[in-house]
Amino acid sequence: MKYLVGDTSNGTAVFAVEGAEAVNLTALDAAVGPDLMALIADPMLAESLAAKMQGAPRVAVSSITPALPVAEPGTIICLGLNYTDHIKEGGYDIPDYPALFMRGKNSIMAAGAPLVRPSCSDKLDYEAELMFIIGKGGRHISEADALNHVFGYTVFNDGSVRDYQRKTHQWTPGKNFDNTGAIGPYVVTPDEVPEGAAGLKIESRVGTEILQSSNTGNMIWSVAQTIATISEYTTLEPGDLIAMGTPPGVGHAKKPNPRWLVPGEVVDIEIEGIGICSNPIVDEKDQATVAAAE
Amino acid sequence: MKYLVGDTSNGTAVFAVEGAEAVNLTALDAAVGPDLMALIADPMLAESLAAKMQGAPRVAVSSITPALPVAEPGTIICLGLNYTDHIKEGGYDIPDYPALFMRGKNSIMAAGAPLVRPSCSDKLDYEAELMFIIGKGGRHISEADALNHVFGYTVFNDGSVRDYQRKTHQWTPGKNFDNTGAIGPYVVTPDEVPEGAAGLKIESRVGTEILQSSNTGNMIWSVAQTIATISEYTTLEPGDLIAMGTPPGVGHAKKPNPRWLVPGEVVDIEIEGIGICSNPIVDEKDQATVAAAE
Repeated sequence: MKYLVGDTSNGTAVFAVEGAEAVNLTALDAAVGPDLMALIADPMLAESLAAKMQGAPRVAVSSITPALPVAEPGTIICLGLNYTDHIKEGGYDIPDYPALFMRGKNSIMAAGAPLVRPSCSDKLDYEAELMFIIGKGGRHISEADALNHVFGYTVFNDGSVRDYQRKTHQWTPGKNFDNTGAIGPYVVTPDEVPEGAAGLKIESRVGTEILQSSNTGNMIWSVAQTIATISEYTTLEPGDLIAMGTPPGVGHAKKPNPRWLVPGEVVDIEIEGIGICSNPIVDEKDQATVAAAE
Repeated sequence: MKYLVGDTSNGTAVFAVEGAEAVNLTALDAAVGPDLMALIADPMLAESLAAKMQGAPRVAVSSITPALPVAEPGTIICLGLNYTDHIKEGGYDIPDYPALFMRGKNSIMAAGAPLVRPSCSDKLDYEAELMFIIGKGGRHISEADALNHVFGYTVFNDGSVRDYQRKTHQWTPGKNFDNTGAIGPYVVTPDEVPEGAAGLKIESRVGTEILQSSNTGNMIWSVAQTIATISEYTTLEPGDLIAMGTPPGVGHAKKPNPRWLVPGEVVDIEIEGIGICSNPIVDEKDQATVAAAE
């Protein structure tokens, strides 16, 4: 199944995407609710919807404004260094444990929404990443069982303000500016992609300019290993979001000059078989103006 | 006002503490709810309770089992290095910006609850810290206005699993083991302590063994500076928790040998005028047994 959470005239709803069309699942069954949490909590719910979807009205996917797949994620954990070449371009050694950091919910927003360059810095950078959503929670999840805990996969732009990321050795500020982490728009269930979403082309682009181009098969830590590693220290909860790190080609490492994002550009992050997360860059001082004009 | 959130036979309630006795505010007015969030959201609520507290029944504070002051904190941000001597004992340079990291909600628990030493490590360490709770939220809060955004102050034990903290340069895993960060039990409003809760004695102890002893006046970044710094990058929300770093004397830096916490010990973190956060150390494998016996 390919889900899209989006805004409608009746509030936010969950859609099932079939090509260029989508079925409003929330309209079919109020139990679906305004985001994916009900479907995550009750795996039987999706099955009960299958029959109802036959003959249900379709809307154009292009008419839906994406919203966050999980409106209030409990925890957002990100791998920092998970592609060998990206580690080298950042000047880091290849570690034997993933570099893990956290983002707060104010730092994320939906695909399509403005990705905000803050007033205090012009060093705004993109990071194409695979993200997955925890379905069944747990602690001490084995690598062998880990993929049973994935609800689905989506696309993430781990927008980073580089000078604030490196103010100290802890990356938190540069990874937590309001409205810099774009998620979505689609969430595909594991049956739609290869095991662990490995072997998928992943790219970031501005227009025709290809900024990053790699493959999720180049990740050092797989999705299964990541779940096992993180759940060694914390109980994962349904709806938690985990981002899998970015391939080489980030802006701060471009030669001869860094390639920072500037207002007016639109960044596309694409993962094969999952979708494109596309967000316009907007200056913080213009953010209210843009929102009011919409 | 000195608040204590605790469990009663009617569920969790908010108490106003007066010496050794406390008034159940939730019983006086259902609008108070099961934790501090309603009082944080509506500053007038506390004023409306003052008259009702006259003649209300008192219970012994010692009869109340503490619960978390905010049951579901949205964001928990911690300063890593905020006392000069602690920075030196950890081998770090004194930075010109605070080292900030985040904890997830599964890593925290109330004063009195077991502080869990995980099965995978015996390097469990204590950290005495001042913590404050955001009242009014906001972004780009000036240092001059910052203290108006503090709801209250409490005590935090930033329990750390040191080998996992230093698996990589990012401290997240070692700061996020389930049930290692103890909060409470009391939350005092700003009028009860010096400005910014500065100038207060802060200690950690196991029995009569004094492990850390310092003063919150030795913090490099004040509460007001911290709010201004963090709100430069993120919108602070009511109920967010911010921990202010720990003074020297942590276990991993003790000479000639590290001083790790072991099951059976009880750690007390005390801040003058706020209270004592006291938690027993329990092995992860015994945690279920301890919980069942209570």
